[in-house]
Amino acid sequence: MIQSIEESPLYRIVNPRSIAFFGASSKVSSMGRLLLKSTQDSGYKGTIYPIHPSEETVLSCKAYKKVADLSEVPDLAIVVLPTAIVCQVLEECGEKGIRQAVIVSGGFQEVGGKGIELEKQLAATAKKYDIKLLGPNCLGIANPSLGVNSTPLPIEGKPGFIGLASQSGSIVAQMYDYLDRFGLGFSTAISIGNQLNTDLIDCMEYLAVCPKTKVITLYIESINRGKRFMETARAITRTKPIVALYVGGSETGRKAAFSHTGSMSGPDCLYSSAFQQSGIVRAQNISELFDFAWALGNLPKPGGNRIAILTDSGGPGAIAADISGRIGLDLPGFSAETREKLAPFIPGTGNANNPIDLTFLTDPSDLFLNIPQVLLEDSNIDMLMIYFLLPVPIMRMRMSSMGMSDDEIDQHLEEVTRKNVEMVTTLSQTFGKPVVGFTFRSLRESMVRRIIESGVPVFPNPERAAKSLAALVDYHRMRDKIQ
Amino acid sequence: MIQSIEESPLYRIVNPRSIAFFGASSKVSSMGRLLLKSTQDSGYKGTIYPIHPSEETVLSCKAYKKVADLSEVPDLAIVVLPTAIVCQVLEECGEKGIRQAVIVSGGFQEVGGKGIELEKQLAATAKKYDIKLLGPNCLGIANPSLGVNSTPLPIEGKPGFIGLASQSGSIVAQMYDYLDRFGLGFSTAISIGNQLNTDLIDCMEYLAVCPKTKVITLYIESINRGKRFMETARAITRTKPIVALYVGGSETGRKAAFSHTGSMSGPDCLYSSAFQQSGIVRAQNISELFDFAWALGNLPKPGGNRIAILTDSGGPGAIAADISGRIGLDLPGFSAETREKLAPFIPGTGNANNPIDLTFLTDPSDLFLNIPQVLLEDSNIDMLMIYFLLPVPIMRMRMSSMGMSDDEIDQHLEEVTRKNVEMVTTLSQTFGKPVVGFTFRSLRESMVRRIIESGVPVFPNPERAAKSLAALVDYHRMRDKIQ
Repeated sequence: MIQSIEESPLYRIVNPRSIAFFGASSKVSSMGRLLLKSTQDSGYKGTIYPIHPSEETVLSCKAYKKVADLSEVPDLAIVVLPTAIVCQVLEECGEKGIRQAVIVSGGFQEVGGKGIELEKQLAATAKKYDIKLLGPNCLGIANPSLGVNSTPLPIEGKPGFIGLASQSGSIVAQMYDYLDRFGLGFSTAISIGNQLNTDLIDCMEYLAVCPKTKVITLYIESINRGKRFMETARAITRTKPIVALYVGGSETGRKAAFSHTGSMSGPDCLYSSAFQQSGIVRAQNISELFDFAWALGNLPKPGGNRIAILTDSGGPGAIAADISGRIGLDLPGFSAETREKLAPFIPGTGNANNPIDLTFLTDPSDLFLNIPQVLLEDSNIDMLMIYFLLPVPIMRMRMSSMGMSDDEIDQHLEEVTRKNVEMVTTLSQTFGKPVVGFTFRSLRESMVRRIIESGVPVFPNPERAAKSLAALVDYHRMRDKIQ
Repeated sequence: MIQSIEESPLYRIVNPRSIAFFGASSKVSSMGRLLLKSTQDSGYKGTIYPIHPSEETVLSCKAYKKVADLSEVPDLAIVVLPTAIVCQVLEECGEKGIRQAVIVSGGFQEVGGKGIELEKQLAATAKKYDIKLLGPNCLGIANPSLGVNSTPLPIEGKPGFIGLASQSGSIVAQMYDYLDRFGLGFSTAISIGNQLNTDLIDCMEYLAVCPKTKVITLYIESINRGKRFMETARAITRTKPIVALYVGGSETGRKAAFSHTGSMSGPDCLYSSAFQQSGIVRAQNISELFDFAWALGNLPKPGGNRIAILTDSGGPGAIAADISGRIGLDLPGFSAETREKLAPFIPGTGNANNPIDLTFLTDPSDLFLNIPQVLLEDSNIDMLMIYFLLPVPIMRMRMSSMGMSDDEIDQHLEEVTRKNVEMVTTLSQTFGKPVVGFTFRSLRESMVRRIIESGVPVFPNPERAAKSLAALVDYHRMRDKIQ
């Protein structure tokens, strides 16, 4: 295992100081032009050299007829050209001294027949010049903090702590906006395509030592070097969590994966068992992949699986209790001491069972601070889930009914929001126990958005909250066993 | 079974021409004031009579000292008062001749002890005056088209086709914003609380004949009249689908439900079997409750469970195929004839297996019209799922790179969007087969939002799309059996 990203063969692919770009032209519909534009729009500060046989400039960059004409050796070549000429271009890159490439072009092994032959030629050329490459048939890299983005969509939102290695380019490019809605973002995301000489394991090794990556996520259709995969994962998960979505385990998934990347996948139970032994948390879908990463990247190790649920509304509390029980979380009753400490905060219509149901809220401090404190002090409680009724629209209505002006309302809401956010975020820091929320309202609402940005995950429903906490418990159990 | 909503005892509760409102005052923190305000903000056009012993006006409405002082008999009393005086107020309502009430106040049977006694007194008063009431311990009614809304949150979004009867008030009030994000809305939502003399079954009967309700949804913690529930449901599901979320089946859910409404729930398998026999689709969580309603309210009956998946991206296609197979949908291969008809639209890097993966898109008509037409013409295909890469941000980038001005881009995008939306919506109408989409991007993006508003559901991930189609298949299988 490497000790720093600089030792990784991926280092200059993920962090290039300059890029030779093949396939961008003035033709507006060209895929290459789109990819170049999205790197420009993502704020890349290094030098880009479009290589084009006839154009003088492409998207305001001076273009060069041949890579040989460049005055320096770029760190990286990005190739978005017709399949037939990719190999020749890689040869020219090798001659120039370029040692890193992203081959976006498809039409190789994944289409079978002649494509297999072309991929062999590509491999030989890469070997001849010792070129480390991503692809072919991939979307390459998204490194938001450097603005490197060889996918067709511009990066939205801020860089985050999620590392991704994916056998699907879409699962990189389509997730910028998705993650941003949860206040999340990629540290680095890598689309590996046909894995000619850089595979899932190389990416895991890179992300393991990437200081910006707190959790590694994997989208897998098949694994080639099984034993090495498990060894690598076992070494990583001692300190950094890995979450994996594997779709090749069903008959329909297996066939689709084969069509997609030509890879041979294995039975579901085999993969589940390999993940388990390696300390990898398995996600069943895209939501779980990033939900689990959200929890694992933000929350401390729970002492066990005992959860307290706090709500001001019976139905959401019952739903949360039902799903928590079904997936193996424990909802203990509270001790006499805890019940006594809770009593002053529970109205006559409410109850101090678990879930605690306040039935209505007179003072937000009860929901956001006073009751949580009592619960987190209890040594029988490992984790806390709070239902956010989100008093914002209600407060707004109340203030409007008092005759307050819109400006006054905004100002007052800002003050209340600031106070609520502060209370919630202090909680998990003070007690070192996982605290999460859930709400059915939009995560874009200001108070929730700010709670999320302060590091407390607020899930869009109780099921996702409970499953993410269960994943957190699972990860630490597996890790303890491995250690 | 009744034949029209006018025959239902709920008719004047859901559609009151005038309301006597107890518990709203100038006290800003009062729950009653909040509820009155939210009815005003929801656009109620009928007369509201606040009843208050000392105030002259409440929220700009002339207030009355006693209900006896009113010059007419209001259709409905809404009561948001301390538990101890609710019974006396209901007595006064009865004397005045009011025959419908919503009792929001809690503190009755659900808290045990003295509360049980108070609820008995309430029942006796209701019986004495033949008053039909919702509650106690409920949030009453949301009837968006009339602006009747006795919950604390203002209604957001448009009225829709989803009827709801819920043992949780939150599941009414918290869903306005949630449903609006999917382009959905309530026709009528009813919070039933302790079900003193109006229960789940009364609501189901009302919603069954409500012309605005296309699908009935139920949030259930327990059912009291089991046999009658099943008979009623069996009669309804012959023509109108019912989706139910039941949370009392786990040990943790059972306890929480008992705390919430004091009701005794039964084992999970018992409820599952009762739902099955009655033609009710069971949802496992809130997302499924409304996802299934979305599909059932918009999509025609599928001929079977055979699905075609169309994507321009391998990963999302593989995920969709995997989950579809796991939950029992069939992904048949295409006939030689269909493959031949597809050939002109599939690029060299793509394939015409199922899922069809275009790998990239040159002409949106291929994704939105040409290929779907071929697939829906095939008698071996019952349903179609399309992955929307959402070319909007890509098109915007492309046009911007052509030097088009923002105005020109907006205009051109509007034209393209209009055309794409038209193509997709024509599809399901022409072939009478279910067509749905999924995307990982925000459902707020203009093109998707408009496709949704035209009646084609676009789910936020493939799992929810596949499960909703499976629910559609299930419903029609159960219905065929019942018929």
